[in-house]
Amino acid sequence: MHSKTYERLCQHAQETALLSATQSLLFWDERTMLPSAGAEYRAKQTAHLAGLIHNRQTAPEVGQWLAELIDSPLAADRHSDQGATIRQLKRLYDKQTRLPQTLVEQLAAMEVTGQRAWAEARRNNDFAAFATHLERIVDLSRQKANAYGCDECCYDALLDDYEPGATTAQVAEVLDGLRAELVPLVAEIAASGRKPNTSILRRHFPMETQEAFCREAAAAIGFDFAAGRLDVTDHPFCCDITPGDCRITTRYDEEFFPGAFFGVLHEAGHGMYEQGLREEFFGLPPGQSVSLGIHESQSRMWENLVARSQAFWRWLFPSARNAFPAALGNVASDEFYFAINDVEPSLIRVEADEATYNLHIIIRFELEQSLLEGDLSVADLPAAWNDKYEQYLGVRPETDADGVLQDIHWSAGLIGYFPTYTLGNLYAAQLFEKADSDIGPLAEHFSRGEFAGLLKWLRQHIHRRGMCCAPAELAEQVTGQTLSHQPLMRYLRTKLGPLYQLV
Amino acid sequence: MHSKTYERLCQHAQETALLSATQSLLFWDERTMLPSAGAEYRAKQTAHLAGLIHNRQTAPEVGQWLAELIDSPLAADRHSDQGATIRQLKRLYDKQTRLPQTLVEQLAAMEVTGQRAWAEARRNNDFAAFATHLERIVDLSRQKANAYGCDECCYDALLDDYEPGATTAQVAEVLDGLRAELVPLVAEIAASGRKPNTSILRRHFPMETQEAFCREAAAAIGFDFAAGRLDVTDHPFCCDITPGDCRITTRYDEEFFPGAFFGVLHEAGHGMYEQGLREEFFGLPPGQSVSLGIHESQSRMWENLVARSQAFWRWLFPSARNAFPAALGNVASDEFYFAINDVEPSLIRVEADEATYNLHIIIRFELEQSLLEGDLSVADLPAAWNDKYEQYLGVRPETDADGVLQDIHWSAGLIGYFPTYTLGNLYAAQLFEKADSDIGPLAEHFSRGEFAGLLKWLRQHIHRRGMCCAPAELAEQVTGQTLSHQPLMRYLRTKLGPLYQLV
Repeated sequence: MHSKTYERLCQHAQETALLSATQSLLFWDERTMLPSAGAEYRAKQTAHLAGLIHNRQTAPEVGQWLAELIDSPLAADRHSDQGATIRQLKRLYDKQTRLPQTLVEQLAAMEVTGQRAWAEARRNNDFAAFATHLERIVDLSRQKANAYGCDECCYDALLDDYEPGATTAQVAEVLDGLRAELVPLVAEIAASGRKPNTSILRRHFPMETQEAFCREAAAAIGFDFAAGRLDVTDHPFCCDITPGDCRITTRYDEEFFPGAFFGVLHEAGHGMYEQGLREEFFGLPPGQSVSLGIHESQSRMWENLVARSQAFWRWLFPSARNAFPAALGNVASDEFYFAINDVEPSLIRVEADEATYNLHIIIRFELEQSLLEGDLSVADLPAAWNDKYEQYLGVRPETDADGVLQDIHWSAGLIGYFPTYTLGNLYAAQLFEKADSDIGPLAEHFSRGEFAGLLKWLRQHIHRRGMCCAPAELAEQVTGQTLSHQPLMRYLRTKLGPLYQLV
Repeated sequence: MHSKTYERLCQHAQETALLSATQSLLFWDERTMLPSAGAEYRAKQTAHLAGLIHNRQTAPEVGQWLAELIDSPLAADRHSDQGATIRQLKRLYDKQTRLPQTLVEQLAAMEVTGQRAWAEARRNNDFAAFATHLERIVDLSRQKANAYGCDECCYDALLDDYEPGATTAQVAEVLDGLRAELVPLVAEIAASGRKPNTSILRRHFPMETQEAFCREAAAAIGFDFAAGRLDVTDHPFCCDITPGDCRITTRYDEEFFPGAFFGVLHEAGHGMYEQGLREEFFGLPPGQSVSLGIHESQSRMWENLVARSQAFWRWLFPSARNAFPAALGNVASDEFYFAINDVEPSLIRVEADEATYNLHIIIRFELEQSLLEGDLSVADLPAAWNDKYEQYLGVRPETDADGVLQDIHWSAGLIGYFPTYTLGNLYAAQLFEKADSDIGPLAEHFSRGEFAGLLKWLRQHIHRRGMCCAPAELAEQVTGQTLSHQPLMRYLRTKLGPLYQLV
């Protein structure tokens, strides 16, 4: 009886997943292939499909199946695939059905108008033109949090969409600890007087060679091109469509090497997580990624802990010099390694280095909480933004376009999303430390161009676990440690100490 | 009251069209972009979406709306957009709901297994391995025709899927007339002793130059790349997705110029028809192409009557020589013009020239009728095929792979489809003759690189009419003539007479 219901539930979810996969293809195509004149109808296609998917996901029969199953023996073992499937689908169903239809529609409409208003405001460096939209976004986000149910703190309810089970208090504690150590580290580096020659990265790197070089590196670390693609877009992303079809994207700047290269390895890290999910659970929680934070831990690990390591370039630098003889012919491996690890406080998040990046995130995390709780008004936001940049990074934006208007997230209604970027860095350091102790020294693998050991470890401990439990729980099971700022700080100090000759 | 129902009907059809557009994107992507490992899930995505679309198209409420509207004043004027919408949607609804669900499923399954068996049989030159599949295909096609309703002839019911309103008797009469004049013309050409130097087309034509050259030519004749794309595939096609998004494809052979070039102009011809449909009727008959035959008339006209004309190359040959100096530097324009119009009986349809091509079609048209009517057994098909090739074209296949197994159509259940290719040639000649008399001489336009006049004429008389009536009726309204073999024969004699110095 229960198992019939369970089968029905799974079949329903997997059929919905086929539609979601189609939605993903529409998105990928829009960002890489769509002719300009096709945009209007693409929006209609997407909206219609979104409606179909939402209707399926919130269908009353799904609620009935879940109500029957949640207290059945099938759900008893919360760590079994069946148990995880039932509990996670119930969690998602409850969240989705708690939002009133009118609020869903208001949020969807706001996403479109908000992004449009933001793009224009940024272009014109005119925060005031975006302010009323942002007020509405904060208000609707508060309504959303209330609809989900706010126990202690509204931000919790929003954060849970991206990092299930994480609480604001826990995240704030870890990020406070991180900030307390990062701010002085960044200051120490600035005071060291050491500075790499980053001009070697701004020479001419022909696009077709870059493309081939990125493709080979992504394949070398383990991205499977028989089950994926690499294409060009304006704002790079990774798009998983179905098992066997995961597409990464990048953009090339012929006068700047790191942009595309580390971008591709970052997206490949996301892609390898998707490629490592269990295909037989397509469309079901055991076959889905557990959270944005853990997803980001995979991309950041391959981008930074692997591809910005000295060992990695001991292996790859000779090939880079062969591929780009005019740009790198007279450059030494260690000179290159220092240049790609330049730490320099800056205004723009997406251009930030490994160390300062997290301060950009902490600023956003603190500000969006204040907005949501009503402690900060939208009108006062630009000044608060600039003050925090000065306080944490020692730099002050001269324009809002280079300040509070730089990111699209808030305009798209994504409040509670930013901390997952730094959670990714934290989890990456923590998982990497454990992998290194289990199967390392990993640096020796990398210096031989071997990445299969690390990938296998991640497959086993992260990818194949899917959404078996909350992300923090998964990381703790794997590493034996709760989330903390210490592994990331250890990693940064160990790496940056020698480069900047810190004592 | 009726107008409310009419609105509901149109909205329903247009929403279904959004799903069909998504299905088209899945198809395009599968043929151009999909990683190999994604094939299995792509099939599931496509099948699921096909089911949703079929359910919408055959929904009982659609039948109720149509029953109410078909005798209402809204449908009274059969040439109005409303009248055409109601009548055509009724026609399609009736056809689709006449097929029992089990037959729909059997046909769908047969399409997959049939094509797979055909591909292997062709690879192994083993007709016997395909014979039982073909028997089943013929049997299911007969069942389909019976379900649609066969008045005089089963073939009528199948043909109607591709060329609405056309009857076997009418088509046979025209094709008989065509064959009676084509066979002696082809023999006359063979006896002329004249032969172009086609080796000039088999020199080296670099792929990237070909691609740029094809793209420029397609844009020059009027294909709008702001509302379309050109990509690479194995079996070229044109895929209309939505208004503003029509994608054509080709394949490049560096050692053979005409393949990609005329292929691109052919697909661009299809694409320009789609780009000329009225956007406000997206998803409704007035905004849809009227038939495969008329669609093919557009592709053939641009490929052959325009792009294989002497005037066209008077304009474009200097550019071709600039683009391919090594291959064409020492070639004269008229030598090139003769080479691309070589008439030579051959075994393979898709490689055939303008004149003999139609004999390939006539053979298939005659044979598939005999199969369907039971006058020819599948076992006797290869011999019948070979005999007809000898009789009409003077060549006899040595293998079934080069004979009866060469085309995919029958294996995919497409019986009744082939004649639309020759209908396309017939309509192309007839429409071109009329356009030439209305706005010509068109040769003068082409020799100046001007194509807007012809495109505007086609927009007005064909594209913007959509599915206003049956294709034969549309062609007769536009040209004042019923379908006949004479315009095509006049065109071929006028063109080939001087080339082969026929008397």
